[in-house]
Amino acid sequence: MFGVFWNRKKNNFHSKLQSLLGFSPKNIELYRECFTHPSENKHDKDGNPLSFERLEFLGDALLDAMVSDYLFSRSKGKDEGYLSKMRAKIVSRDNLNLIGEELNLTEFLLEEVPKNKLSTKIYGDLLEGLLGAIYLDRGYKKALKFTQTNVLAKIKDLDHLENQIVSYKSFLLEWAQKNKHTVNLDTSEIEALENQKIFTTEIFLNGNPMSSATGISKKLSQEEACKRAYLILNQKI
Amino acid sequence: MFGVFWNRKKNNFHSKLQSLLGFSPKNIELYRECFTHPSENKHDKDGNPLSFERLEFLGDALLDAMVSDYLFSRSKGKDEGYLSKMRAKIVSRDNLNLIGEELNLTEFLLEEVPKNKLSTKIYGDLLEGLLGAIYLDRGYKKALKFTQTNVLAKIKDLDHLENQIVSYKSFLLEWAQKNKHTVNLDTSEIEALENQKIFTTEIFLNGNPMSSATGISKKLSQEEACKRAYLILNQKI
Repeated sequence: MFGVFWNRKKNNFHSKLQSLLGFSPKNIELYRECFTHPSENKHDKDGNPLSFERLEFLGDALLDAMVSDYLFSRSKGKDEGYLSKMRAKIVSRDNLNLIGEELNLTEFLLEEVPKNKLSTKIYGDLLEGLLGAIYLDRGYKKALKFTQTNVLAKIKDLDHLENQIVSYKSFLLEWAQKNKHTVNLDTSEIEALENQKIFTTEIFLNGNPMSSATGISKKLSQEEACKRAYLILNQKI
Repeated sequence: MFGVFWNRKKNNFHSKLQSLLGFSPKNIELYRECFTHPSENKHDKDGNPLSFERLEFLGDALLDAMVSDYLFSRSKGKDEGYLSKMRAKIVSRDNLNLIGEELNLTEFLLEEVPKNKLSTKIYGDLLEGLLGAIYLDRGYKKALKFTQTNVLAKIKDLDHLENQIVSYKSFLLEWAQKNKHTVNLDTSEIEALENQKIFTTEIFLNGNPMSSATGISKKLSQEEACKRAYLILNQKI
């Protein structure tokens, strides 16, 4: 019975992965490495620590290269300073986190990891790790295709991106610091249904309530609340 | 006659390039862009500035990705901190400059550029630009092959590289600063034959002559003189 349970879990990982990737993974061990959190203290057969961190290192560099290629071709008249600025926006931790969250990448983690052990950049880390795994499993072209679908296709307009706020939370906190205001984010968690949580974030400006929003993750509720605060500020400034 | 001269020059560029690359370039315009210096103030047919700088931006990111791939596969038991440190050594400006100088990349510049307009990192810049051009012209695999032949194949031993001094000049200047010594490099230039110069560098430690060397470039003569100084110091320390 135990064997059947594990096989089912394994098959489940493989089929979930296939529908995420849009192709069948060949070397499944690479993806298992990608979805292993360092806090699990796993090791490979030679006793080396096993987690997504090395794949993330590789994926991070690959993503930079693919985004550079994209920008080079699409921004003919722009110099390398512009290309560099735009790349930083596209590969920003906030942007990658949003994409990784949309893809539900933490759902693929092989073992459940306590929330307090997941860093705020876990989604971006897993996204980069996954890109590294795809590259090693199926080569540069397949990895590029994955980046095109999940990262580059989401860039609607480069001119718009140039002035776009990637994270309202970052914008709000930076604005507050620059203008000597105090901004507080108060996020609470409600267990709505079994295994489903709802997060509510309230924003206080200099101690006064300003906006609030709910969402299915802490991050999403904070972003939405900060966006609302931004819109309010935009009317006042 | 003028047309014949230019055609010959063009063919010469193409054939020199082919023997450098080991394959026939398809889109020669990319390589012309790579070997155009910003000081020429060239523009493309749409009026956009044309030089190696945008290709260098692309090649820089590609090189990082290729070196990351190399390190990931060859350093199984090492964490991402080690990978990151080793990558920095391999893609260091000093290392890339040495490789670009060995390949005589400034010889490919389409117009002669006054020496004082060539930055000290010109060889590394051209190496990265060339990698960007190969990638756009012939794809990732060909670009990877170029990096394997010209950058990765030169890494004899990673453990050795970990402790290796990439630049004796940097080492010497850092050592002097750390140990409160004064090191001076005095480089002079001699016109030996027509269009051929020889550079001599003398190293002074706290005002006393220590070593000297000659070379066909300022950089090479400095490196060699610093290496000799390093060997002398190594016996004394």
